[in-house]
Amino acid sequence: MKTAIFEEAGKMEVYDVEKPRLQAEDDVIIKVVRACVCGSDLWSYAHGDNKEAHSENSGHEALGIVEEIGSAITTVKPGDFVIVPFTHGCGECAACRAGFDGTCDRHQGASNWSHGFQSEYIRFHYANWALIKIPGQPADYTEGMIKSLLTLADVMPTGYHAARCAEVKPGDKVVVIGDGAVGQCAVIAAKMRGASQIVLMSRHEDRQQLAQEFGATAIVAQRGEEGIQKVRELLGGGADAALECVGTQAAIDQAIGVLHNGGRIGYVGVPHYDNRPIGSTFAQNIAIAGGSASVTTYDKQFLLKAVLDGDINPGKVFTQTYALSDINQAYLDMQERKTIKSMLVVAE
Amino acid sequence: MKTAIFEEAGKMEVYDVEKPRLQAEDDVIIKVVRACVCGSDLWSYAHGDNKEAHSENSGHEALGIVEEIGSAITTVKPGDFVIVPFTHGCGECAACRAGFDGTCDRHQGASNWSHGFQSEYIRFHYANWALIKIPGQPADYTEGMIKSLLTLADVMPTGYHAARCAEVKPGDKVVVIGDGAVGQCAVIAAKMRGASQIVLMSRHEDRQQLAQEFGATAIVAQRGEEGIQKVRELLGGGADAALECVGTQAAIDQAIGVLHNGGRIGYVGVPHYDNRPIGSTFAQNIAIAGGSASVTTYDKQFLLKAVLDGDINPGKVFTQTYALSDINQAYLDMQERKTIKSMLVVAE
Repeated sequence: MKTAIFEEAGKMEVYDVEKPRLQAEDDVIIKVVRACVCGSDLWSYAHGDNKEAHSENSGHEALGIVEEIGSAITTVKPGDFVIVPFTHGCGECAACRAGFDGTCDRHQGASNWSHGFQSEYIRFHYANWALIKIPGQPADYTEGMIKSLLTLADVMPTGYHAARCAEVKPGDKVVVIGDGAVGQCAVIAAKMRGASQIVLMSRHEDRQQLAQEFGATAIVAQRGEEGIQKVRELLGGGADAALECVGTQAAIDQAIGVLHNGGRIGYVGVPHYDNRPIGSTFAQNIAIAGGSASVTTYDKQFLLKAVLDGDINPGKVFTQTYALSDINQAYLDMQERKTIKSMLVVAE
Repeated sequence: MKTAIFEEAGKMEVYDVEKPRLQAEDDVIIKVVRACVCGSDLWSYAHGDNKEAHSENSGHEALGIVEEIGSAITTVKPGDFVIVPFTHGCGECAACRAGFDGTCDRHQGASNWSHGFQSEYIRFHYANWALIKIPGQPADYTEGMIKSLLTLADVMPTGYHAARCAEVKPGDKVVVIGDGAVGQCAVIAAKMRGASQIVLMSRHEDRQQLAQEFGATAIVAQRGEEGIQKVRELLGGGADAALECVGTQAAIDQAIGVLHNGGRIGYVGVPHYDNRPIGSTFAQNIAIAGGSASVTTYDKQFLLKAVLDGDINPGKVFTQTYALSDINQAYLDMQERKTIKSMLVVAE
């Protein structure tokens, strides 16, 4: 089968490798229909970011068809159409029961993260609870709907996680930091939770327009102290919640800066910063929460229904589509902001 | 009038000074009936902690009788019996409206903190919304009730703030770190919010007993990794919430260590640590919130009623009583853990 290999920073290539096989009783082999490139894949593509040369791709979002199941699998059967999440919650531990399957207590760290999904076939481990079944087959859906379903593997639940961690509630004034696919989905999530005002920090016209379609009520292009002042002017004071969807020092500083005292931050950008200690926001009474999204929980509870009912349309973040053989272009265009998010059509 | 002066670390003395006068239209002059010593006063008493020699005392909790009011004061009148909080919320800004008057947006930083309350008379600034009127007069209450009312100036709302910031909800398994007056009040608060299990970390028998009277269901005397393992054994896994009521590195490490992934920390100990960056709990999906308590909000909404109805009895944290002239002994005994919290009888 074909799979994408990370050769080195700036270079993804497709190789022929052996098709994966069941290795444990709770493994599932999945034929990939759609995969995509994540903003987090770009940390290594752009900078290397300690990723080993000629190593497995870091793709971790897919839609697919179940091909084979391990002996302990009771929830899906061969032929089922599924969302393949970037995590592997058990559904039973204290973290999963509290709705935090992105950081399952049983499958901690590396065992809870997916990788290698930019491939024709994948082995999905700890599969029994984590996979999300989609009614019907791919051919039953429009390409627009397929795109929205694909966002349910990561970016839509991740945007939602930011809004949930910041406890966005009806009437809240919300600031979204990050205009990539996750930031766009955070705008959708803030609107779903009833925010009255949603300000997106963005300097790119195409992303500004999409966010406004999704529910952003204002855009601020300025950054740093100037951006903070502009937000405060627009909102007539500090925001109730800030959704930090980037993971840089500038982004978390911005999030802290736009809030009124007692405001709340939900952060889902993988932190690439470390110069603000826990406790340093004591004088602002700020609540800070974040981590990996609860893909399976949110999809099963409400996001899959919201997509199928047409209430939300997050698939619009996929502004370019590529064959698996064009994997390097898919990374490069996203890196150069020629597309918000790159979709890979792996099979029909 | 008499007032306590911080001479230097380990030395509090009483001096005669001029009685305070109204300086602004929203000032109130209060005759102090009871004051007390706070755990936070001990940072400077024990270590100096950058406090200037021969400077005003840092006392910031009192019950008193309104003596004089500024021209803009509409909420209290001379003769009223009041709780005098350690903060000065305006009641109208976004922070106060969100229930975070401990960090009012209008009265930021030093202007929001009280000091000098270990005195016969005090000037309370930004007074119109912040003071809390108590029905009747001191003589109408038992000394036990007076003690509980005095906790409403700081430690009871502060313990409650930890539980609110950690969003303790019915059925939660809660760990309280700190067995001082605030930790004790956090136990009361966790019980008020319906926690099913409340574990107190404590090595002092008198404090363990009081906490069990207040609702602690178990005590863990071990610290560090051993303490964390003991808590997990007792709870059959990680806790849902940790209430950090100390402010040291060991305490925040303990709080992070006892939680299951997706757990929540409320911290009210003034942070004296800085080696865990914001974002470092991403892999555990932990929510961290804290700051100065919302004394006026909580007292007016429910804590004053809970005390007057006898539902809670936080005044038991005052295990020793002193005259103002014995101020140094009041500090020293608390410092040496001979009393949980020292009350000062300033007037009857």
